[in-house]
Amino acid sequence: MILDLNADLGEGFGVWRLGDDAALLDIVTSANVACGFHAGDASTMRAVCQAAAAGGVAVGAQVSYRDLAGFGRRFIDVDPAQLADEILYQIGALDGIARASGTSVGYVKPHGALYNAVVHHDAQAAAVADAVRAFGELPVLGLPGSRLLDAAESVGLPCVFEAFADRGYTPEGTLVPRGEAGALITETAAVVDRAVRLAVSGEIVAVDGTVLLMPARSLCLHGDTPGAVHHARAVRAALDQAGVEVAAFVG
Amino acid sequence: MILDLNADLGEGFGVWRLGDDAALLDIVTSANVACGFHAGDASTMRAVCQAAAAGGVAVGAQVSYRDLAGFGRRFIDVDPAQLADEILYQIGALDGIARASGTSVGYVKPHGALYNAVVHHDAQAAAVADAVRAFGELPVLGLPGSRLLDAAESVGLPCVFEAFADRGYTPEGTLVPRGEAGALITETAAVVDRAVRLAVSGEIVAVDGTVLLMPARSLCLHGDTPGAVHHARAVRAALDQAGVEVAAFVG
Amino acid sequence: MILDLNADLGEGFGVWRLGDDAALLDIVTSANVACGFHAGDASTMRAVCQAAAAGGVAVGAQVSYRDLAGFGRRFIDVDPAQLADEILYQIGALDGIARASGTSVGYVKPHGALYNAVVHHDAQAAAVADAVRAFGELPVLGLPGSRLLDAAESVGLPCVFEAFADRGYTPEGTLVPRGEAGALITETAAVVDRAVRLAVSGEIVAVDGTVLLMPARSLCLHGDTPGAVHHARAVRAALDQAGVEVAAFVG
Amino acid sequence: MILDLNADLGEGFGVWRLGDDAALLDIVTSANVACGFHAGDASTMRAVCQAAAAGGVAVGAQVSYRDLAGFGRRFIDVDPAQLADEILYQIGALDGIARASGTSVGYVKPHGALYNAVVHHDAQAAAVADAVRAFGELPVLGLPGSRLLDAAESVGLPCVFEAFADRGYTPEGTLVPRGEAGALITETAAVVDRAVRLAVSGEIVAVDGTVLLMPARSLCLHGDTPGAVHHARAVRAALDQAGVEVAAFVG
Repeated sequence: MILDLNADLGEGFGVWRLGDDAALLDIVTSANVACGFHAGDASTMRAVCQAAAAGGVAVGAQVSYRDLAGFGRRFIDVDPAQLADEILYQIGALDGIARASGTSVGYVKPHGALYNAVVHHDAQAAAVADAVRAFGELPVLGLPGSRLLDAAESVGLPCVFEAFADRGYTPEGTLVPRGEAGALITETAAVVDRAVRLAVSGEIVAVDGTVLLMPARSLCLHGDTPGAVHHARAVRAALDQAGVEVAAFVG
Repeated sequence: MILDLNADLGEGFGVWRLGDDAALLDIVTSANVACGFHAGDASTMRAVCQAAAAGGVAVGAQVSYRDLAGFGRRFIDVDPAQLADEILYQIGALDGIARASGTSVGYVKPHGALYNAVVHHDAQAAAVADAVRAFGELPVLGLPGSRLLDAAESVGLPCVFEAFADRGYTPEGTLVPRGEAGALITETAAVVDRAVRLAVSGEIVAVDGTVLLMPARSLCLHGDTPGAVHHARAVRAALDQAGVEVAAFVG
Repeated sequence: MILDLNADLGEGFGVWRLGDDAALLDIVTSANVACGFHAGDASTMRAVCQAAAAGGVAVGAQVSYRDLAGFGRRFIDVDPAQLADEILYQIGALDGIARASGTSVGYVKPHGALYNAVVHHDAQAAAVADAVRAFGELPVLGLPGSRLLDAAESVGLPCVFEAFADRGYTPEGTLVPRGEAGALITETAAVVDRAVRLAVSGEIVAVDGTVLLMPARSLCLHGDTPGAVHHARAVRAALDQAGVEVAAFVG
Repeated sequence: MILDLNADLGEGFGVWRLGDDAALLDIVTSANVACGFHAGDASTMRAVCQAAAAGGVAVGAQVSYRDLAGFGRRFIDVDPAQLADEILYQIGALDGIARASGTSVGYVKPHGALYNAVVHHDAQAAAVADAVRAFGELPVLGLPGSRLLDAAESVGLPCVFEAFADRGYTPEGTLVPRGEAGALITETAAVVDRAVRLAVSGEIVAVDGTVLLMPARSLCLHGDTPGAVHHARAVRAALDQAGVEVAAFVG
């Protein structure tokens, strides 16, 4: 009964803002900080790192395809060796800023289209794992069963499973694709119930009613949708009330 | 009689190449590696770092304004706090790549318009020094008398003086601005003579014949002009022949 | 007693939004559309152009330095010939999109740091005027007394004067620099009064009480500050009530 | 016996150069000018347009995914509506510059990964065709049998077939994928023979010896590989000697 709460943070760029970083930093225990490739200029990164350090929130590198115009949401068929170098660049950049802010990069989680690609794309999954391994011994946060976690494990990296309380699951334990029935759970009560059951029993209920064992150490909270902060706050409160220890997975 | 030779390297971007990195890496002892803001994609950075590590060449962060379209050659009136964050971002990114390549960032040198600005621009000079200090205890390579080196010294950073054998000096010891008579020395023999005299006697002759004391620990070699590699090779050979020890200023 | 109301529109980029385009399009008669260099991806440009065409709002090219990270708010010492080419590029890009949306670029107005620079920077002012002239015979919207309007007039372009109801003026008729006392007028009633007096009497009162003659054909409304839309709506209502004809200066 | 010769031009960016624009402009009759998304800053675009206008070479918009870092060579799974807007933006930008240079955009040809994608990707092919249609009535230059030309035809655009003298063809008339045997023809004599046979007889010989009817109106010459200009010059000379009229397909 110990669970990490992670959310994407620092996803503005220059004059533009996205999401409510301050509110989420009061709720989560791990901050996936954008590293400049899909969002996150250097000053935004520094502000988030300083706030995370002050609040005892762990910092992770939310690495992405190089795609500011598309917010990292479009698959790019980038050469895996080049992708590895770009991932390494992003982790290093964030780590320099994090260390100057009194913390450091504690884990890595891919963003957007890259997150989706490395569920099944062997070469890109291996590239991400290689880059993390080249940087150091950081844990990788990802979807159970994804090629990324297979690749991370095969190069000796710690793997951390995450789950989603506001996404539907197939009976096979994969996420229902967006656009299909049951893909998104929008009622706060349902999201909260799923989060608590996941934390207490390690279970999640699939769209057909199947009860899945889901040994997730981290729960992903979304921050950029209407009502997202409200959901996140309700989940955190319910977990606290249920006696679940909410804590980061990194020191 | 010990001198470092530094040159700008890794200044291609994506499909585009600039300069002859391989030739220069055989000549210099310190590589100013572009960090992605004026040039230098992640894969180019990694290739240069690996070659530098293999050849025992020190790696420095050649930090710049964010300006790929202008190659960092235009002054940008960026907010100093934001500049500091961008410098920190660049150093961290290169250091991540350098460490994965068996070396690390050993020093910092501004590029292009930023190099020129921090000769006199107090706030931007302080921003660069603050960023380097925030990253660690790295030496700063720059022009004697520049505001950058003043700022670096005031925050406790080691300062390394550099000189130019192919640039004219005023009697006051500043560089003759490009476009004025005597700004550029183009004959190989003259460049070589100036380099050797600098190394052996610590002197450089100004455009009016004044002999200046110039206690430079590093000599900057240009690599992106026609004949540049030829000049650099001739300078290196003459220094070796004159018994000058050519060695980096960082471990 | 005829006045145009202009505002900056389409200043989001990719996933990021800025300002309330829909609200402002109901108020203004001229839309300064961002062209991709400080803000404004192609799809945002197209959406604004389509809405402007539908609402009978004139479209102007809000041209900028190439500076997404700084939102075009930092002076860049760009070569004037290159600046001219970049201005031409932006006008052409917007015109292509505008024509596909049933309208066309009717005028040009520089944005942010470029707007401020061409008040006094001769070479950049000439570059902007040359680019507009090279594109066609478009009017240039700017500050009375600026070098830009001088340059525009000297190459035969129509010049349109604009004024600001929410900015303080010096007795010499220039804007009080931001940060100085009286630079910003924030009370709605004061902004509305100044707008009406400008429209009805062609006068604006300087910070020291001097009454200035200000023959502005267009009034700039800001859209990206808190309360901006409220101000804009109040100004429009007061002008309508005062019998001022609010109409664009282009066909 | 009339053939256009096209080549990619203006593919530098900022300080970086690629290919020999001046040499190619003496050989080709149509210049595919990069529009800033994979290469081609505004000043490069203007220089190429001015030289093309002076030399009587037609100007086409070489449109691309937004991908400077990858030179437009990576497939991007961009939303088709957004792709259409980006294509329109690029055509408009080039047309503004071309008209200021005494010419105009005469046709459109996709670049790199987009060229390859629209051979088979229906939605992206339709997006390109829609964008060209929205801009005007420009011809589209592409591969016979591609989805792009189907889409262009279905919205009423003129379609122009192109062929490659230095690429191998399958018996089905498609290009042998790079990396497979016979994909590239590197001997000058063979390239020249294939070009002349194509022009004179409308035939090209597939890798298995099959003689294909290939009614191409334009032949693509590559400019960015070693020996490319030599090949191009030899092809042009041979066509002239064979009495083939080498002429653009646009006015």
